[in-house]
Amino acid sequence: MSIQVVRTTDGWWVESGTGRLHRVETDAATTAGLLADRSAVQQAAALAAGDPDAGLSAGEAELLSPVTTPCRVVAQMVNYRSHAVDSGFDPDTVPPAFFRKASGSVSGPYQDIVRPQHVRFLDYEVELGLVMGADLPVGTEVTDSTLPEFVAALVVADDVSARDLQLPKTQFYESKSYPTFTPLGPRLLLVDADDLARLPDLQLTLQVNGATRQDRSTTDMIVRPARALSLLARFQTLQPGDVLLTGTPGGTALKSPGRLLTTLAALLPPHKRWQKFFARQQANPDYLKDGDVVTARIATDDGVLDLGEQRTVVRAR
Amino acid sequence: MSIQVVRTTDGWWVESGTGRLHRVETDAATTAGLLADRSAVQQAAALAAGDPDAGLSAGEAELLSPVTTPCRVVAQMVNYRSHAVDSGFDPDTVPPAFFRKASGSVSGPYQDIVRPQHVRFLDYEVELGLVMGADLPVGTEVTDSTLPEFVAALVVADDVSARDLQLPKTQFYESKSYPTFTPLGPRLLLVDADDLARLPDLQLTLQVNGATRQDRSTTDMIVRPARALSLLARFQTLQPGDVLLTGTPGGTALKSPGRLLTTLAALLPPHKRWQKFFARQQANPDYLKDGDVVTARIATDDGVLDLGEQRTVVRAR
Repeated sequence: MSIQVVRTTDGWWVESGTGRLHRVETDAATTAGLLADRSAVQQAAALAAGDPDAGLSAGEAELLSPVTTPCRVVAQMVNYRSHAVDSGFDPDTVPPAFFRKASGSVSGPYQDIVRPQHVRFLDYEVELGLVMGADLPVGTEVTDSTLPEFVAALVVADDVSARDLQLPKTQFYESKSYPTFTPLGPRLLLVDADDLARLPDLQLTLQVNGATRQDRSTTDMIVRPARALSLLARFQTLQPGDVLLTGTPGGTALKSPGRLLTTLAALLPPHKRWQKFFARQQANPDYLKDGDVVTARIATDDGVLDLGEQRTVVRAR
Repeated sequence: MSIQVVRTTDGWWVESGTGRLHRVETDAATTAGLLADRSAVQQAAALAAGDPDAGLSAGEAELLSPVTTPCRVVAQMVNYRSHAVDSGFDPDTVPPAFFRKASGSVSGPYQDIVRPQHVRFLDYEVELGLVMGADLPVGTEVTDSTLPEFVAALVVADDVSARDLQLPKTQFYESKSYPTFTPLGPRLLLVDADDLARLPDLQLTLQVNGATRQDRSTTDMIVRPARALSLLARFQTLQPGDVLLTGTPGGTALKSPGRLLTTLAALLPPHKRWQKFFARQQANPDYLKDGDVVTARIATDDGVLDLGEQRTVVRAR
């Protein structure tokens, strides 16, 4: 059964079903440390279950990212069929690909998203984050049945993206690595094998100023977690506390201009192509503006798995 | 004046002008630790200068990468005019871009390059690596005159690249991150301000089985080190021991098929485009084959700065 863990400047807490916080008695300073101290977490979980209304009010606590940094943040490129269509890829032939985000981009679930002055086309991407609980050496093959040995927890992520850097530069690393470009949390949802069997039931939703932009279940995923970890482990080792972001569903502000326009654009030199593309994008109202409120949540419809809701506000630096 | 440092399983050594190794009396286990223990290095350098023929023979020692891992390995995409032309970019308009390599790809200067079975088009890229000696917080502006405050050492790197993964996946991370895909060394060349003023005099050369493939000076660079670090520090913090690879000059096996073919190819769906591209590349004899010997070196013509020569052999896994 899943355990909802949150982090404050004071330490780690288990959240009860009624939203009260029960302290985890641990010295762990990192997410890896917390995941290694399972008995302390389970003790707090037992207290939370026994007297759910005791403990601190969650509202009183300023929650931090439940994933501590530095850690590796790896992300899957184009991994939902609906997002492939949005971004001009064929979902049946787009090859599985990974990129890195700087872990300095990780921020708290209620912290502002800071838009650098030189970024004009800022986009959101709600994503399911897998938090590692064990070493994943190069060469590891992960299956659905061994997945629980490697994935200890789930977390809501927003893979904030500066599209005007991302597309002309082709490498996604910079456009997604500015500070506050990876809000994580609120909850580190500790999961067991039964919970992970319900991965396909998770629903990802993201709203901007209350209007729904993304709302899709993980059944739309192209490369699912066990295979994604196997592909990643061909070249990259992971350790406890590292995170794999598993891609975003359709509904981002960015929409591909369609096959014909794309083909014609290919006749232009790249820098001209992107000038024209972003000139057109100025008429697209969906990019994030200063003051916009982004809420993102991931849960099963029956609420049995609930990663919580993050709420971030966009502001200019 | 530069100091030539090498690393073995036994620790750290200063190499004298006659190639003898003088032990650095330090407990440093990491490159960051060594760079922090400057007095120990200088003591060994003084001994090496005073009695250059004493000490161990360099030939007797099995040298490791002088950059220890884990560390951040960041690389600049397309950063020499000659390589831009090779790979189909306009050197005047290609935007500066960075990508990450897994530091698990770092290997020693005489270690084999292991080609995974699924990689068919393996390429070499000699690169100058900058090793950080100080924190580079986000927002740092680096100039030529402040460069010596941040860059402590230089190192020869080979940014080994699986082209058949790199191009279809578009993100460079996987194709350049397999174990042994970043041979570093032999020397960690500790540099001061006078040495760094000679960066434009460095000559990069790479040979395969004795035939020269790359031979170009750093004057061909597009974004030079101080500006590269400033651009990187817009979003990525670096710490001592981290490495920035500054791009490769022309002469890789990969050559762009030219503007007309590229434009025509853009009319095809991406997976068909790459199928055709690599079908043609089978006739290109320049990709690395099992048993090939790759030598890479970086030095000034007068030998005042000499990062040494690495020698790696390609073998299949």
